[in-house]
Amino acid sequence: MPRWLEDCRPFAHNGSPAAYIPELAKAPKEALGVTLLATDGSTISGGDSSQMFTMQSISKVFTLLLALMSNGEEAVFAKVGMEPTGDDFNSMLKLELVEPGIPFNPLINAGAIAVTSLIPGIDVMDKTLRILEFIRYLAGDENIGYNIAVSSSEAATAYRNRSLAYFLKDNDVLDAQTDVEELLSVYFNHCAIEVNCHHLARMALILAHGGLDPLTNRQLLPRRYVQIAKTFMLTCGMYNASGEFAIKVGIPAKSGVAGGIMAVVPGQYGIGIIGPALDRRGNSIAGVRLLEAMSVECDWSIF
Amino acid sequence: MPRWLEDCRPFAHNGSPAAYIPELAKAPKEALGVTLLATDGSTISGGDSSQMFTMQSISKVFTLLLALMSNGEEAVFAKVGMEPTGDDFNSMLKLELVEPGIPFNPLINAGAIAVTSLIPGIDVMDKTLRILEFIRYLAGDENIGYNIAVSSSEAATAYRNRSLAYFLKDNDVLDAQTDVEELLSVYFNHCAIEVNCHHLARMALILAHGGLDPLTNRQLLPRRYVQIAKTFMLTCGMYNASGEFAIKVGIPAKSGVAGGIMAVVPGQYGIGIIGPALDRRGNSIAGVRLLEAMSVECDWSIF
Amino acid sequence: MPRWLEDCRPFAHNGSPAAYIPELAKAPKEALGVTLLATDGSTISGGDSSQMFTMQSISKVFTLLLALMSNGEEAVFAKVGMEPTGDDFNSMLKLELVEPGIPFNPLINAGAIAVTSLIPGIDVMDKTLRILEFIRYLAGDENIGYNIAVSSSEAATAYRNRSLAYFLKDNDVLDAQTDVEELLSVYFNHCAIEVNCHHLARMALILAHGGLDPLTNRQLLPRRYVQIAKTFMLTCGMYNASGEFAIKVGIPAKSGVAGGIMAVVPGQYGIGIIGPALDRRGNSIAGVRLLEAMSVECDWSIF
Amino acid sequence: MPRWLEDCRPFAHNGSPAAYIPELAKAPKEALGVTLLATDGSTISGGDSSQMFTMQSISKVFTLLLALMSNGEEAVFAKVGMEPTGDDFNSMLKLELVEPGIPFNPLINAGAIAVTSLIPGIDVMDKTLRILEFIRYLAGDENIGYNIAVSSSEAATAYRNRSLAYFLKDNDVLDAQTDVEELLSVYFNHCAIEVNCHHLARMALILAHGGLDPLTNRQLLPRRYVQIAKTFMLTCGMYNASGEFAIKVGIPAKSGVAGGIMAVVPGQYGIGIIGPALDRRGNSIAGVRLLEAMSVECDWSIF
Repeated sequence: MPRWLEDCRPFAHNGSPAAYIPELAKAPKEALGVTLLATDGSTISGGDSSQMFTMQSISKVFTLLLALMSNGEEAVFAKVGMEPTGDDFNSMLKLELVEPGIPFNPLINAGAIAVTSLIPGIDVMDKTLRILEFIRYLAGDENIGYNIAVSSSEAATAYRNRSLAYFLKDNDVLDAQTDVEELLSVYFNHCAIEVNCHHLARMALILAHGGLDPLTNRQLLPRRYVQIAKTFMLTCGMYNASGEFAIKVGIPAKSGVAGGIMAVVPGQYGIGIIGPALDRRGNSIAGVRLLEAMSVECDWSIF
Repeated sequence: MPRWLEDCRPFAHNGSPAAYIPELAKAPKEALGVTLLATDGSTISGGDSSQMFTMQSISKVFTLLLALMSNGEEAVFAKVGMEPTGDDFNSMLKLELVEPGIPFNPLINAGAIAVTSLIPGIDVMDKTLRILEFIRYLAGDENIGYNIAVSSSEAATAYRNRSLAYFLKDNDVLDAQTDVEELLSVYFNHCAIEVNCHHLARMALILAHGGLDPLTNRQLLPRRYVQIAKTFMLTCGMYNASGEFAIKVGIPAKSGVAGGIMAVVPGQYGIGIIGPALDRRGNSIAGVRLLEAMSVECDWSIF
Repeated sequence: MPRWLEDCRPFAHNGSPAAYIPELAKAPKEALGVTLLATDGSTISGGDSSQMFTMQSISKVFTLLLALMSNGEEAVFAKVGMEPTGDDFNSMLKLELVEPGIPFNPLINAGAIAVTSLIPGIDVMDKTLRILEFIRYLAGDENIGYNIAVSSSEAATAYRNRSLAYFLKDNDVLDAQTDVEELLSVYFNHCAIEVNCHHLARMALILAHGGLDPLTNRQLLPRRYVQIAKTFMLTCGMYNASGEFAIKVGIPAKSGVAGGIMAVVPGQYGIGIIGPALDRRGNSIAGVRLLEAMSVECDWSIF
Repeated sequence: MPRWLEDCRPFAHNGSPAAYIPELAKAPKEALGVTLLATDGSTISGGDSSQMFTMQSISKVFTLLLALMSNGEEAVFAKVGMEPTGDDFNSMLKLELVEPGIPFNPLINAGAIAVTSLIPGIDVMDKTLRILEFIRYLAGDENIGYNIAVSSSEAATAYRNRSLAYFLKDNDVLDAQTDVEELLSVYFNHCAIEVNCHHLARMALILAHGGLDPLTNRQLLPRRYVQIAKTFMLTCGMYNASGEFAIKVGIPAKSGVAGGIMAVVPGQYGIGIIGPALDRRGNSIAGVRLLEAMSVECDWSIF
């Protein structure tokens, strides 16, 4: 692991931290950390694996799971499709071009916003806490919170997400009673939930076992919904580099623009990675290299 | 005129009033009115020419003129282009697809919102009044006001325009200090300015004379800006039926979704028309037919 | 199996055979056949499993494998990407919109045409025979041929594919010396290779074992290339319903517009299906239902 | 005139001759010539006004006129629309995106190819000669021919136009019996018709007088069709800079990628210009500047 870590760290120089959320731009570019958590509970960690970072798009996997558990498949897939798009994560093209104008999948921004509108709760704080509790429950850490500075930083500048949300409202993807600003507050809050590599690895291990926590032998999530989540991670989890990641790494994974990646080796490992320097598609540049090196060496591809 | 009016009135049955602004959907579908004002001040009116209606997109011609007079050509064309698009009036495709992401012209919604951001004033009411005063000045009627019910109705439902405006904000077409909701309030207000066919004909006559009011012999508008406005009316004034209108009618005109059309016969006439039933492109279906009949009969095409 | 077959057969009434290739439109709409070939060589067949049909897009999996074996990964991926598109299989949008204008993946038409250009051979017949030999070798049947009537029927009407090919030529995806008509002849020929469900199942079983034929214990294909092929089958194999198929069925599969589907249950089964009535995305409507029923019942999803 | 010519010549340094037709790339970059022909027959010429060059897209105006004269408005507008597009002249986006898939107007490549399919004649040469005779008749010079080297050069490399033509064939815009290669031969031939500035000015003067040749007082073209042609020149004649040209120059004009521009000052002048260095939209960079300078000075805008 240390060798791989050191081999991959230099790739960070070809990328840079996300600039569009001012608070994220401050992240240390050269950081790289990883945690592998095996089914038997043994852990391999390296680098900056204890550093805290915001989940960003990784949280979309969990709002999808929570929305499925709260509303069922039919209600969720009335608002969001199942297809990869090939477009940028914040693209609006297909909303305008393809009938009936629902987001193509729950892991692009438009889709994740639609899914967030399905989280139950009486107000912004109630919904935020519900998602936060869900993450704490799966990660096994009651101390997990969300970074208000990041959430506020994004809220202050996220004009493209506002544009997306109002487009969804216009297309009747969002219910008539949905208040866009409140919805976006919930969205920015869950994107700002702070974790480290151990947390991601812990949650990924549960996904790796179909919702069963192998360390406690408790079924924490319905197996079918975990299956759905992992399928989306494989087909759409790495923005519009998902296809390439599937060919080169071949395991379900989800990235976030803070540089985190949560990856699942079915039946074997949960993996958490942090590396804030991003490639042009928005994925951790060193993190992707690290996963590719490990997958090839360990023959992890599910194909 | 009465014959043409009666010949064209039945076409209204193939269209319907705009449904997306609830207040507009109440308009009488079969109404049709027209006023021709000649250079010597003689007037021909027919049908429902005294009925009041909101200007909607017709107001975009005047916010463009006001923005040009307040900011100059260079500042205006830094925020909006000069090209017809071929897309729907509320399309966002080219904002995403074509660098540098400024609206293609000032008469599509995105462009008109950008232009409205250039209207000087300290707050919503100040800017609204400035536009209103400008319309009163040109139409020669101090009693012109704006319909608050329509403005509020649109404000309550205009999610697509909000989406457009936030996209423009994200693309830096709107200045950092521009508040989107305030900007849209001004936009909805000027779209809700209420006029009748006489008012439109009066303003059109001034455009027909390059900014000179032939009835008072006063130059009310700079000739170059009137030229710009008329050019846009010809190339982009009738939404994405502008090209067809140019071929079939051949004069500068601007339509609004309340069913109004303001048309200019250079050097000869100012024309105002109302006919609330719209075709699928958003133009008054009977109004377009009426203009086509008159243009062919009187050989009005500028080509 | 017979029960499932009979349960799924009625779905064919909601679809119809491909109309755009005249010869295919003659196919019996209500036909449905399936063959499952297990690792130990045991076979379950039902319905019209012995009926011959043309591979159409299913052949794209094998031209990809042959191109990889003849040219290596680097050369192939210089001409074709790795991403799902979300667009129709014959769409040209992304070729115009997304730099550098190479097809997004090898399983849409544009990508398959680019891949076919990499098949070695001195002329149309040489290249056609090379692909045919490859299919015969994998399917274990020297009598497999291609249907000249179908190939000619497609050649006579495939204006969209010609348009795609010339666009690729213009974008320099096809080499300067590539003759478009000759390339398309090879393409139409390999699409017209005739097989039955047993042949598809036989080839799928080899893919299910990473290129090893479990019945003869011979490694017929390089494992890495089989991995690539199966990954594309999962992310892009069912046209722009691939994402939905991954969620609902969860196994690598490739469909053709003649109604065939080749599906892979890793380590367990090769599956061949025929059902000429297609859904609006171009997949066998009863075939997809049959795979979904079997996958849910037998828990085949790889996720 | 000489002053304007010399003022505008340096702009050529910011552009370059069309590279995509190899034969055109040889044109002298710094050339600039102009001819103004007045209604009374007086001529002002300057610079390289006698240099011969190929009409390229300028010929589209005349194939449109000939198609209208041979088929009538209804037949022509069944195959081509009336709207500007805002897209590149060789774009295919709207053919795929907008029903019913006919080209938006007759002056983009797709539209001009569709119009060329309406030219009567028994074979390529017959159709080519018919167009050539039409040009000779209007330009008043029996010696006008077409440049076979340019036509062949384009035929050998015009993969994008082939792609466009096959797309039109697939969309049934081209008749079933239309042979694409033959159609393109006619198209390349009429684009390769060689003229000089005097020829363009001569033809433009006829357009400036509604089809009447003021020098012979003969009506050479139906007035309505000339009106249609001039309208398209104004709305779509300068590729996707047509809107800007309308604002800045304000007269009907058509450019070609060999650097020619034919412009019409209604009732006054016919203008021919040559300047092979093009801007990024494909218009003669010095030629556009020259027209702008003259239009502002002489107040030519029709608005």
